[in-house]
Amino acid sequence: MKRVTVYDTTLRDGMQGESVSLSGVGKLRLAQILDDFGVDYIEGGYAASNPKDMEFFKAVRRRKLANARIAAFGSTRRANTPVAEDAGTIKLLESAADTITIFGKAWKLHVDEVLRTTEAENLAMVGDTVRHLKKHGKEVIFDAEHFFDGYKDRPAFARRVLHAAAEAGADVLVLCDTRGGSLPHEIYDITRTVVSAMGRPVGIHCHNDGGMSTANTIEAVRAGARHVQGTMNGYGERCGNADLCVIVPNLVLKMGCQCLRKGKLKDLFKVSHMIDEMLNVPHDRRSPYAGESAFAHKAGMHVNAVQKNPASFEHVAPEAVGNKRRILISELSGGSNILLKAVEMGVEMSKSSPEVRDVLRELEDLERKGYEFEAADASFQMLIQKVLKQRQSFFDLDGFRVIVEKRGKAQPCLSEATVKLTVNGECEHTVGEGDGPVNALDCALRRALMRFYPSIEKVSLLDYKVRILDPEQATAAKTRVLIESSDGKDTWGTVGVSENIIEASWEALVDSVEYKLFKDESRGRKARKPKAPDGEGK
Amino acid sequence: MKRVTVYDTTLRDGMQGESVSLSGVGKLRLAQILDDFGVDYIEGGYAASNPKDMEFFKAVRRRKLANARIAAFGSTRRANTPVAEDAGTIKLLESAADTITIFGKAWKLHVDEVLRTTEAENLAMVGDTVRHLKKHGKEVIFDAEHFFDGYKDRPAFARRVLHAAAEAGADVLVLCDTRGGSLPHEIYDITRTVVSAMGRPVGIHCHNDGGMSTANTIEAVRAGARHVQGTMNGYGERCGNADLCVIVPNLVLKMGCQCLRKGKLKDLFKVSHMIDEMLNVPHDRRSPYAGESAFAHKAGMHVNAVQKNPASFEHVAPEAVGNKRRILISELSGGSNILLKAVEMGVEMSKSSPEVRDVLRELEDLERKGYEFEAADASFQMLIQKVLKQRQSFFDLDGFRVIVEKRGKAQPCLSEATVKLTVNGECEHTVGEGDGPVNALDCALRRALMRFYPSIEKVSLLDYKVRILDPEQATAAKTRVLIESSDGKDTWGTVGVSENIIEASWEALVDSVEYKLFKDESRGRKARKPKAPDGEGK
Repeated sequence: MKRVTVYDTTLRDGMQGESVSLSGVGKLRLAQILDDFGVDYIEGGYAASNPKDMEFFKAVRRRKLANARIAAFGSTRRANTPVAEDAGTIKLLESAADTITIFGKAWKLHVDEVLRTTEAENLAMVGDTVRHLKKHGKEVIFDAEHFFDGYKDRPAFARRVLHAAAEAGADVLVLCDTRGGSLPHEIYDITRTVVSAMGRPVGIHCHNDGGMSTANTIEAVRAGARHVQGTMNGYGERCGNADLCVIVPNLVLKMGCQCLRKGKLKDLFKVSHMIDEMLNVPHDRRSPYAGESAFAHKAGMHVNAVQKNPASFEHVAPEAVGNKRRILISELSGGSNILLKAVEMGVEMSKSSPEVRDVLRELEDLERKGYEFEAADASFQMLIQKVLKQRQSFFDLDGFRVIVEKRGKAQPCLSEATVKLTVNGECEHTVGEGDGPVNALDCALRRALMRFYPSIEKVSLLDYKVRILDPEQATAAKTRVLIESSDGKDTWGTVGVSENIIEASWEALVDSVEYKLFKDESRGRKARKPKAPDGEGK
Repeated sequence: MKRVTVYDTTLRDGMQGESVSLSGVGKLRLAQILDDFGVDYIEGGYAASNPKDMEFFKAVRRRKLANARIAAFGSTRRANTPVAEDAGTIKLLESAADTITIFGKAWKLHVDEVLRTTEAENLAMVGDTVRHLKKHGKEVIFDAEHFFDGYKDRPAFARRVLHAAAEAGADVLVLCDTRGGSLPHEIYDITRTVVSAMGRPVGIHCHNDGGMSTANTIEAVRAGARHVQGTMNGYGERCGNADLCVIVPNLVLKMGCQCLRKGKLKDLFKVSHMIDEMLNVPHDRRSPYAGESAFAHKAGMHVNAVQKNPASFEHVAPEAVGNKRRILISELSGGSNILLKAVEMGVEMSKSSPEVRDVLRELEDLERKGYEFEAADASFQMLIQKVLKQRQSFFDLDGFRVIVEKRGKAQPCLSEATVKLTVNGECEHTVGEGDGPVNALDCALRRALMRFYPSIEKVSLLDYKVRILDPEQATAAKTRVLIESSDGKDTWGTVGVSENIIEASWEALVDSVEYKLFKDESRGRKARKPKAPDGEGK
């Protein structure tokens, strides 16, 4: 099995992404998560440019990391400056990290136009800095910036830069596709040439500007690279860096490589989501391996096939990366999704039963009206019960009224709602206030039900989404409201659709409340049921 | 130059993505956009499974598309069914599309375990269906489902399926990586073998489960495929399909291929964003080529280098795909943007004027609160005028009240709004009804202003969008409302933000109305102005 070293640069290159930043404490927490996940290196930051990064290096030394080495990042010395007096190099040593990663220019264009120095001086900058850091006992990783663009432009120029680093003692030579525009076959060819020529561990560092960063990384490993750099969830400047959450499972599950600590790949889903949460970035549900949709099946034929054999539409087992299979409900679904979902929910139904068809017809009808059940499984369950005529009514609505009022330009809006309903012949009439009309309505509804169903108190709304369905019709368009609720134990989604946003919200609120009551009831029923002698109660 | 055919399946495979759906009108609008963009094929839907898709085929025939052919999608005939009696095949012909794309199984596992039939029958299903469709004069594209997995498992089995389709007359043989888990070198090797063996146009259809779909598509083209299938923005089941918004620029700008209508690549940014808008999916700012961050530079060194030579950190020119360079967190660049916008709007401002800084500060403050001005240029103009203390007040609000009421479960919701305001000392108090609270409010506001400003009658709302900004806070979260208005001549966008959706809508409505009045006024002023002798009036 090939051992491939994982070098994480989320805390450095990742932080160059737009709208991405972390506090000092956040950086430490993230380092701990990465260490536990089992990456080999954590690049902590840019020693020279950022006092916050320097503090991180100090703070992280006090923590004992179980697995990862900390790397400090910086550049080669400035042109025409003795390395011992170079401010950046001094800072790098000050970081006291055991591993130092420096980048040097491998493309003539950058040497000419950005550094504005000679090739000889550029080579001296690389050699001097590596040698100096080695003399101080550091492990030195050399990032050959713009290596691929440089090589495509002038192969010999790019090679001389690598040789300067190697001769000065660099431990790993990392080939960087800094502009992120190279194609996989270019990466493969060039990396293979370098690997066979250099006789030293070669690494790869890709960016995603051409949408190829993961493929490019994989191709480099195929060509002999044994050290991969990337960021969690692909954060990074412009289109981001190569995404370790995609690269690592590909390496382990498809290329027979050994990465991370043993058994840790199963944490991928959790770790990927946790990091997005820390950075307050919404998780990309479509992302390979760790996305919520990565193993979600919507088309009826796919669902049918997956039931027969999951391998029919899943390239790896979702459990391998801690993800799970999900069956979605939509007009594309067909009977098998309905059935599967119903069984999952504990409804007894067989494929041949006419109810499956009835549910499907009702579903199609509602979807035409704008309902969507993918994120509203509680509403879907209520729908099945309605079609099966099993839906229980927990209350009768006599009516509600919502008033939103503003007096004077500078005054805030006031929202007030009243709800009148009947439970078992008893009438309840309540009022609620809120930040907006829906908030007020939710408050009045809960207040009205509390006396009869005290468990309602535990329900809270986690998420509220509004979508206008035919925006061309402007304010008279249809509105779809999706609500996510929780009682601390479970979470569930409900949906409402109407031309009136208040009514759509009301529908979703009522479904949510009724689902909760139904759930409690059926649990109570199960608990009261005598234990079956043949297993159910065991 | 290699001509590569672009086959878009956003309307079919794309719709299998989680939380993705379009109304019938939406599908037609999207087809028009794709046609104008210049794709060669638009796969309109699944003829057999979905009445909505069948309606699309009818409706799209009535429109004249300038460029694209419409393809209907379906499967080979069912096992042991004469093709002329096969319901799916009948539906495909009923669609009346000139091009029919059918998929057949190319992996033994699927034939054995999903279809549960013999290899001979599977081959007959492929051959019969293709032959039947050719007999009816159709162009037939054959999607060899699971081709790569099937080939890796049993090459001869997979090849026989292709031969069956080719011998029956299929015009294009499309190799599908249906599970999306193949690696680039596998795609390259297998495609090359097929291309040289078949002597017929070969296509490629990739999914993104391993994060390789764009690279895999590019590798297939390198290996000789000349027809690429994908979806805009990569919508699709699980991790999505190969993203045409990434593939096409790579093909054109890096592989010297000819795709799309001439000069249309420059529309990429616009089209990609427009489609996300239509589907109400937030655009991925990090996406290659079309992402807002794709050419955004944050690190100081990068910004500096890009100023010296943009090629130093940009793999292609942003203008090639209609995107633009952005410099992040730079007060100065912020200032010049403001200035640019102000000048564009005819506001007189110079770079050195302190107002630029004031507008910037106000803007940053509002954006922190959740405002967004990209789609709300009228609100932005009102903001500039407010900061410049030039904002004219057209009316004073005394107050409004909105009531939404429901009596009895089955009764519809009633929405009524009252508005009280003063214009030049005269008070007006009106009431309006509507389909929902915002519609009612809009109605009452217009009615109140009509007497003083009759031109208000011409204003209509074209679009109304709602986004919840902190969804974790559920119904008490902040709401952003975007409104697009038109008076028949111009259209303009306005924005409002509040915890109360009614108040947010009110803000956007008022901005819209005031912008219209301001616009009329300043035109009137200009018209009354004596003509300048040196050109302005010419």
